[in-house]
Formats: sequence, C-alpha cells, structure tokens
Amino acid sequence: MTTITHLEVRDTRFPTSRDLDGSDAMNAAPDYSATYVILSTDAGDGHEGHGLTFTIGRGNEVCVAAVNSLASRIVGRELETITADMGRFWRDLTSGDSQLRWLGPEKGVIHLACAAIVNAVWDLWAKREGKPIWKLLADMTPEELVRCLDFRFVSDALTPGEALAILKRNEAGKAQREAHMREAGYPGYTTSAGWLGYSEDKMRQLAREALAEGWEHFKQKVGGDLTEDRRRAQILREEIGWQRTLMMDANQMWDVDEAIANMRSLAEYAPLWIEEPTSPDDILGHAEIRARLAPSIGVATGEHCHNRVMFKQLLQADAIDFCQLDAARLGGLNEVIVVLLLAAKYDVPVCPHGGGVGLCEYTQHISLFDYIAVSGSLEGRLLEYVDHLHEHFVDPVRIDKGRYLVPEAPGYSITMHPESLARFQFPDGEAWQE
Amino acid sequence: MTTITHLEVRDTRFPTSRDLDGSDAMNAAPDYSATYVILSTDAGDGHEGHGLTFTIGRGNEVCVAAVNSLASRIVGRELETITADMGRFWRDLTSGDSQLRWLGPEKGVIHLACAAIVNAVWDLWAKREGKPIWKLLADMTPEELVRCLDFRFVSDALTPGEALAILKRNEAGKAQREAHMREAGYPGYTTSAGWLGYSEDKMRQLAREALAEGWEHFKQKVGGDLTEDRRRAQILREEIGWQRTLMMDANQMWDVDEAIANMRSLAEYAPLWIEEPTSPDDILGHAEIRARLAPSIGVATGEHCHNRVMFKQLLQADAIDFCQLDAARLGGLNEVIVVLLLAAKYDVPVCPHGGGVGLCEYTQHISLFDYIAVSGSLEGRLLEYVDHLHEHFVDPVRIDKGRYLVPEAPGYSITMHPESLARFQFPDGEAWQE
Repeated sequence: MTTITHLEVRDTRFPTSRDLDGSDAMNAAPDYSATYVILSTDAGDGHEGHGLTFTIGRGNEVCVAAVNSLASRIVGRELETITADMGRFWRDLTSGDSQLRWLGPEKGVIHLACAAIVNAVWDLWAKREGKPIWKLLADMTPEELVRCLDFRFVSDALTPGEALAILKRNEAGKAQREAHMREAGYPGYTTSAGWLGYSEDKMRQLAREALAEGWEHFKQKVGGDLTEDRRRAQILREEIGWQRTLMMDANQMWDVDEAIANMRSLAEYAPLWIEEPTSPDDILGHAEIRARLAPSIGVATGEHCHNRVMFKQLLQADAIDFCQLDAARLGGLNEVIVVLLLAAKYDVPVCPHGGGVGLCEYTQHISLFDYIAVSGSLEGRLLEYVDHLHEHFVDPVRIDKGRYLVPEAPGYSITMHPESLARFQFPDGEAWQE
Repeated sequence: MTTITHLEVRDTRFPTSRDLDGSDAMNAAPDYSATYVILSTDAGDGHEGHGLTFTIGRGNEVCVAAVNSLASRIVGRELETITADMGRFWRDLTSGDSQLRWLGPEKGVIHLACAAIVNAVWDLWAKREGKPIWKLLADMTPEELVRCLDFRFVSDALTPGEALAILKRNEAGKAQREAHMREAGYPGYTTSAGWLGYSEDKMRQLAREALAEGWEHFKQKVGGDLTEDRRRAQILREEIGWQRTLMMDANQMWDVDEAIANMRSLAEYAPLWIEEPTSPDDILGHAEIRARLAPSIGVATGEHCHNRVMFKQLLQADAIDFCQLDAARLGGLNEVIVVLLLAAKYDVPVCPHGGGVGLCEYTQHISLFDYIAVSGSLEGRLLEYVDHLHEHFVDPVRIDKGRYLVPEAPGYSITMHPESLARFQFPDGEAWQE
C-alpha cells in the first residue's frame, strides 16, 4: 500500500496584467495564477501528484488557505484505497467535513481548493499507471468509471444506471475513435486575437498569424461599449472572412434584457455563440436569452458554473447550446465526468473552458475522453486554445493546424517546471521582485 | 469627513459541538463560529462598526483570510462617501476587484467575507445615527433606500422603478406598523427542541419548557433515518399537540425524488414546511418538490442560497413558499433588501434563517423592516429563534411569549462583549485551551 505522506501547496502567479493578456470586460487586468498542489507518497518511485486550481491573481492566497484547511483529509490516506472507490473519496473530500462544507457548499473557494487536490490525486494515479489521464479513463470499463462518480443531487436527471448505459453504448467504437484522435487531433479554436485590451493593429496581426497557423475558429471578447464591440467584430470578420467561425464572449457583463438587445445588434457578424451573456448563476436567464436569440445565435456558458447541480439545471431548462465546463472550478475530474455524462444525455456538446494557466493542459484530456468514451461525437465540439504560459509545463499542449495533438505523457499534463514554480512564487519569487 | 482607519478581523469560535447543540443530518457537530470584523474611524466618537459572518467551525480561518484580502477596499475610505451611495459601495466591494470576484463570483467564502464587512459598515452608520438598523431603514424615503441597492442581474425581475413602487405603496402605514411592533413584538418560532443529536428525554423537556415560555411554532430536524424522523415527529406532536405549528428541516440531505417520497411519509405529522429538502443550488429541483407536495406541505429554503440571482430564480420558478434568506450568506444588508423586495413582488413571505451565532440578532432588524416598510404584512411570516450564545452580545435579542421584542439600541445588535471575543478567540482563547 502507498500512503500519501505530504501535501505541499504553492501560491504561483504570473504577472500577465502587465501586457493586458487575458483582458475582458469583466476581468480587466488578470494575473493568471495557480493554487498549486503537490502530493508526495512513501512509494519511493519518484512519482508526485500535481494539481492546480486557476485564479486571476489577488485572492489566490485564500485558495491556498483553503487547501491547507483540507490537507488533513488526504494526508495519511492510502492511494489504493482512494482509487478503489474514487466516488466515495470525492464525496468525502467535498462533503465529509460538514464544517468545511458550510463554506460552499460545493462552490467558491472551498470547491476550487477541492479541485486542485482531486486533480492531483488523478495525476498521481495516472503517472503510476504510466498513462495519460484520457487513456486511463478510456481504458476503464463503464462499471469502473461509474464507481468514480458521485450522483448526489443529480439522480433526478441521471442515475448510475443511465450513466452505465451511455458508456456502454459507446464501448464498441472506442479503439477506432482513439486511433482517429491520434491521427487527426482534436479540433480547437483560438481566442488569442480577441482580447479586449488589444489595439486594432495587434488584433489584425494576431488574427493573421492564427490564420497562417491553420486556425478556423475564432473568439472575441465583447461586453464593453457596443459600438466598439461591433467595430472589433468587423475587424475580425475582415481578417477571417465569413466562412470561418466567430464566437463572442461577454464575460457576464449584461443583464438578461441587455444581453438580448446587444446580441441582436451583433448578430450581423454571425457569431456561432454568445458566451457568458449574464450572471453564471442565472439558469432561467440563460434559458430566456437562448429562447429569444434562437436559432441564429447559440448560448454558451460554464467557466463559472460551480458544480454539477447547476449544469444539471442548465440542461434541464434548455438554457445552453454549448457546455463550457471548467476543469478546476468544478470539484476536479470526478465531477467533470458527471457533467460530461449529463451533457451526453441531454445531447449538448461540451466545449471546455481553456485559457488561463493550465486549463488547456487539463481540458485536452477531458475532450479526448468525451469523444472516445462518452459522447462519441465531434459535432459542435471545439476545444478552446489560448497561447499563454504553456512554456511553464513539463508536457505542454501541442497544437498543429488548429488541432490539439494527443498527449502521451503519463498524468494530467499539469506538472510545472520547478524553475517556473520558484520564479513565479508569490510574493517572494524573482518575477515579483522586478 | 470620517475616515475608516482600521479593519480588525477575529476568528471567534464556540465549542458547541461538545453538547451537540445545532446538530442536524448534514451538520453533525458544528462549532458555531464568527469571522468577526471591527471597523474603526478617526472620528473620535467612540463608535466602531461591528459585523460578522457565520460559519460552523473549521474553515473560519479561510473566511478570515478573505476578509484580510478585501480590507484594502475599505480602509482609508470616507464613511460619508460610502453612505451617500451605498449601492455603488456594495457593487465596488463585491465586484470592483475582478481578481477577487473570480473566487466567487458572489458566492462562497469571498461573499461571506463581504457580508461581514458590509454589515459592519451598516452597524457603524446606524450607531452614528443613534438608531437601530431597522429604524434607520424604516426612516429612509423610498428613493434613499433604492440608492442603497444594486439591481445588477435582477433587473429582468425587479427594476429600480418597481422597487420604488413597492416601497411607496407601504409608506402610509409605516408609523402604525412601527407602533404595532413596539406593542406586540414580531412572531417567532423555536428550533431548540428539535435538534437531531438530542435524546427523547431532552426533546420532551425542551418542548415543555418552550411551551411554558409561550412558543406556538416549532421546528424539528429530519433527514436522518426515516423511521427515526417519524418517531421524533410523533414525540413533538405529543408534546405540542396538533393545533400548534410544526416545521421540518432536512438540511439538504435528500435528492429530489427522495425528498418527495420521505415527505409524503412525514406528511402524517402535518408539517407547515419542508426546509432545505435538497441541494440549495437546485432551483428546478425545489420547484419539482413543491409541485408534487402541494398544497399540503410548503417548501422553504434560503440559508445556503448565496445571492440575489438565486433567490430571483427560486421566485420566478415558483419553487418556494417561504424565503429563508441569511443575513450573512447574502452579501450583507444591501443584498438582503433586494431579496426582500423581490419576495414582496412575488408575494412570498420572508422567514429569515436564525440560529448559529448572531443570526437572530441580525434578522430581527430585517423582519421588522420588512413588515414596516416592504411587505407590510405578517401573514405566513415567522422569525426563527434558537437559544444559543446570545449572552455574548452587548444587545442580545429579547423574547417574550414566543415573540421578538423590538431592539432599541443603535446599530445592528451584533457587537459582542470584548471578554467573549477574547475567551473564544481561536485557537488561543481560554475556551480552546480547556
């Protein structure tokens, strides 16, 4: 048996606000940051479990505090006992200490902290199995997968039996789809040209570079001044033409009626979807927006959707056309899989939230697994790509002609270089002394 | 002008788990705790602003960390500038720093921390005006009140104009209702006999004491073993009879179908409402439960409902018969007032969440203001009372024959004795050394 002997948590921050990378109408100047967890064991095999949750700067110290408060629930436990019943482990971590549960429940800081720990456990497990996460999952039987999940509060929409049936339906084609992914990669889209803080020149230059690299699908930020949003859409359409895909992202800037009015104006630029048109908590608001913009513009949301109960309702209410789950705002991979299954049941494509630091590294595994074993489909599915901070990862994402290449290194691809962790340690690292 | 010169935050915990006070099916052993904020000014008038958010023990240190992260947004500001535009101050505190907003948004630890700070500002304002909070609010004009509010993300359900209309509708009778409250007090209910961890003897004894004190409305915890829940309901009905009111509280223990099945069994004991039958995030689930239990049992929830957007939807979806807002889980008094107005518009009675430490002290002001100036009604309204920890407050709630007496001391009644803050400081206070 292997005991988890130590949990280390680091406050890692990148000063991205200096260049307005990642700027949008709600988040004007983010410093992409990670609450970064390292699990050690007594196995003596050199394997560590790495996991992170993503924040945008100030407040990362609060997530670090939450990880420290949760640490005693995992340190001292045996990895094999955890992996033998991952569903139980997940329930125990997220709800087993009712005093800590009170801080959410299953939302905000305490859930972000759970995500970092849960994903570190999966990373450790996959490294020891010598498989990338997507392959570890794809090789499981439907029964083994369902045992990793907690159906609490979603059983009215998805029972364990229904989850099994979805997974069994797609068992036959798994090998074929895995081969297809190794050959073709997973289709992506890029936000790199569309950030709000960029000048027209920078937008045009980045759009041209993206086209030269083979990208076919582009996203722009909206939600500032409407005239300005229209002008920027015009610039992008001039650069990418009208055959390629344009998406828009308002980052929660609008009230419901405002979202509808503004998107009716922006409809002229034929966006595939409007992302985060309003509060991420407003299920009925998204349903209203969707109904009133249909069928010309789809509704997408999810990066701030905090748990499976919220996604369940977005699906039950016909509120979304695209499910943009976040690998580290949901409580880690176990809950992500529940949402993949819910989305499959309601036949809504999953297009995970990328960008930030480490999110693309995570989501490539999620979308590959979704295609190979859960939905079995690429229809309507695009994986967000943002070209920020990948150089800090030991096994960064690899992109070719706008598609994600299949990651082959064992684990969840989230391990950062020790030099990066040292340099961007907040507030003492060199990068913060400059 | 008066400058807020200092914010002090304390980790105050009461070892209530030693006696199973406050035990329920989800929260087996809470240590009622407060993230306690004290604001000082340069006015030299001796007034401090006190505010707290409530947690149940472990994790309180995470809320303390979040308050510290928010402190720079209030220290150095002028009180008169804040109170001249409270709505703007509230928006700025909860969303003005997009990096901190990312941790919620408007939910979990960061929102709990905002509540403590916001309520401390209100307490300071009211003390300087020499009025209890309910009176400070009741004396405002509708226009002044609306200026304290942020309608972001709820304008599809409640516009500032509609809020004004609701307040104006009730202006005429304010003096009369204030006099009525001073004479009669506000009707309460008690949970003291109904905690899950208590023996049959203790339940019967506490129920008899409560009857002798004049209580007419009683709540019991359910959500453990169904046979046991029925047995305890039977005990309470034997003690209180069938003319008095019995409510039940499941503290989120059930999935949707389970809640319906269990409450059909417990319907025999004629509960007025089932509280928190399932996940607090499950708006559509509550609507389903309500539809299938109607009209015999009402649905109540709110103590874990994290913001006005969630309450808006609970009301839009006809999901609740009783709105149990929490004075410190919502982002403080400004957001509480928005929810009062939403509830008034949808004609749903507000029965705030009490218990814990300090919540009854807060909610008496909220319900008084609701009656005097917002809903103008007592119909279906009962204010929760739990007899825990009131001795630590300088101006504790006063109860007579099951009714809350009107608080007359200036402020929000949340100031604790310095000796209590010292003794229950975690982990160094005397109470934690025993």
